[in-house]
Amino acid sequence: MATDKIFIFDTTLRDGEQVPGCKLRKDQKLEIASVLDQMGVDVIEAGFPISSPGDFEAVSAVAKIVKNATVCGLSRSVEKDIKVAAEALVYAKYPRIHTGIGTSESHMKFKFKCGPEEIIERAVAAVKYAKSFVEDVEFYAEDAGRSENAFLARVCEEVIKAGATVLNIPDTTGYCLPEEYGAKIKYLRENVKGIERAILSTHCHNDLGLATANSIAGVINGARQIESTINGVGERAGNTSLEEVVMIIKQKLSNQFHTNINSRMLKPTSLLVSNEMGMFVQANKAIVGDNAFAHSSGIHQDGVIKNRETYEIIDPLEVGVPKSSIVLTARSGRAALAYRAKEIGYNLTKDELDVAYAGFLTLADNQKEVKDEDLEVLLKEKVFA
Amino acid sequence: MATDKIFIFDTTLRDGEQVPGCKLRKDQKLEIASVLDQMGVDVIEAGFPISSPGDFEAVSAVAKIVKNATVCGLSRSVEKDIKVAAEALVYAKYPRIHTGIGTSESHMKFKFKCGPEEIIERAVAAVKYAKSFVEDVEFYAEDAGRSENAFLARVCEEVIKAGATVLNIPDTTGYCLPEEYGAKIKYLRENVKGIERAILSTHCHNDLGLATANSIAGVINGARQIESTINGVGERAGNTSLEEVVMIIKQKLSNQFHTNINSRMLKPTSLLVSNEMGMFVQANKAIVGDNAFAHSSGIHQDGVIKNRETYEIIDPLEVGVPKSSIVLTARSGRAALAYRAKEIGYNLTKDELDVAYAGFLTLADNQKEVKDEDLEVLLKEKVFA
Repeated sequence: MATDKIFIFDTTLRDGEQVPGCKLRKDQKLEIASVLDQMGVDVIEAGFPISSPGDFEAVSAVAKIVKNATVCGLSRSVEKDIKVAAEALVYAKYPRIHTGIGTSESHMKFKFKCGPEEIIERAVAAVKYAKSFVEDVEFYAEDAGRSENAFLARVCEEVIKAGATVLNIPDTTGYCLPEEYGAKIKYLRENVKGIERAILSTHCHNDLGLATANSIAGVINGARQIESTINGVGERAGNTSLEEVVMIIKQKLSNQFHTNINSRMLKPTSLLVSNEMGMFVQANKAIVGDNAFAHSSGIHQDGVIKNRETYEIIDPLEVGVPKSSIVLTARSGRAALAYRAKEIGYNLTKDELDVAYAGFLTLADNQKEVKDEDLEVLLKEKVFA
Repeated sequence: MATDKIFIFDTTLRDGEQVPGCKLRKDQKLEIASVLDQMGVDVIEAGFPISSPGDFEAVSAVAKIVKNATVCGLSRSVEKDIKVAAEALVYAKYPRIHTGIGTSESHMKFKFKCGPEEIIERAVAAVKYAKSFVEDVEFYAEDAGRSENAFLARVCEEVIKAGATVLNIPDTTGYCLPEEYGAKIKYLRENVKGIERAILSTHCHNDLGLATANSIAGVINGARQIESTINGVGERAGNTSLEEVVMIIKQKLSNQFHTNINSRMLKPTSLLVSNEMGMFVQANKAIVGDNAFAHSSGIHQDGVIKNRETYEIIDPLEVGVPKSSIVLTARSGRAALAYRAKEIGYNLTKDELDVAYAGFLTLADNQKEVKDEDLEVLLKEKVFA
């Protein structure tokens, strides 16, 4: 059965890189862009060209080297921004300008200090101006998560008329619950005239820990592009994690959707971005954390040794992790101890295992993890002395 | 209007502590338990007493010092486990034994090697035996996320008859989408006879990045207890983050639900657990990450300076973070530069700001963050020389 393609838009180099401590040099951006391109990302947002001369140069350099993906540059709905973005993208094989304006009460009142009609005028003018440089123009309705649906639909309708090819509906403040965000996307699919001519895109932030769930709710309700970053880096609590949405689509929604991502590159790409940015990924991070496939409780280890799928829903190889690990701690049981002993060459009998296990528990109560070396010493001293 | 209480069950000391590298000494467990108790956690799962002598002692010590919370000990559906758990809890003011067995096809077939009728028998026997020691018995249906709903409902019905006060429905492998998990809880609410005599509890794992969304879907569909850990530590990709579900209930669902948690203790408690465990929390972690309230892009900084709520949905003070920060990087704009210059004593005119900004951008393109000291030097050399 044919399934719908979900376009993966990566903004690691823009929304990710703008974060405290995450700044990358141009050569680092080029390396990451090249890996994203190989991994099968559909759109690489390379930067915000007007924001600084360094960012302009980086976007321009990325545009030159990317072979398959669309390269995108951000701009506000300001002529100078758009013109500079177009200049930075001039060498891109598939250029896209991403422009937009805030559509929520809060953004209109405090940031733009103008009314809804003027917002629409500025949005339309920005899209038209961007269209004079490139065919592919994505429009963002900033703070769409808190924007009134009827007004948001009007804005979308007008920018589609002006030529927008993609409509980005950001939950800028990470404010929505999945039901709310899904309902917003559904409302737009059902109420915006001409919506069939544009792709709806999710762009979720993780302030409440819901970015991944919101993005998936968006897709289920009609969005066909997800904006995300490697490791979920990004402003404040970060953006949607690319690795999480890709694996959810692959593991849970493959009867309806697919992406172009080679999932075996997820873990190596996560490591690359984490190292280049100096942004540590916590061990308990879904898909790419160091412990994502590590089992330590006795109950779990026993189950995994009997059958991997007892406790694992993803084969670690599928995301580029060599294998799941059985870590020996005070919570480990006999099965794990026998398993690891066997791995270092000791086939223990039941009686030997009983002796070894008693010694193991005392040792494990005093240290975080019992490594192969410790186990070797233990077996030699307690069992085979 | 009266809202429903959502009980917060913390398993940092059990499901969290069983993780590679997270082992805590007894004194550390006591310190954390005491803080959790002060913060208003309803149930503290202190450990798995049968698993090791050290764990037994720690549960027993926690049981002695906790003043308000229920103290809970884990066990398998095995008499010896339950007896040892009861012994460890003997000094608890409000003791709870948490016992259970796997109910999924995979767990029955590969782990227990027995059929559904035997699973029910063992479940009922375990609950009855636990009831002979304590009044409050929580039953877990391990791998409920992948268990067949009709069978799960039968198990629940039987253990309620046997005296279970709480039914824990774990998504042990982090397998469910929010709709699926919510539907499972709804099914149990509607199909288990006697369900009004027990509390349904969520226990979600974060393998797909959905633990928080699944827990909230559970609550919306009838669960009244959430099992979670500080910083989302736990087996593999971890458990539901306590701080995330608490803040979602507070910010988004307060018209229906409340918890007993003093949210201002969230950040300090996160730091304590992270330090004691040596488990690093990534900067882009929701609610408690170092960047959760840091703004660096020019567009965002400008908005926050005009009005905090433009980009922030939670007042940082509400979670114990002193204030949101405006970090100066190459993505910062004039408004942020003027704001930070003013904070160190320079009220720049428009012309002075133009000069300072040009110098600032060159500096910022070459370093990750421009700190107060750098700014001071810049202003002295470029503007006020």
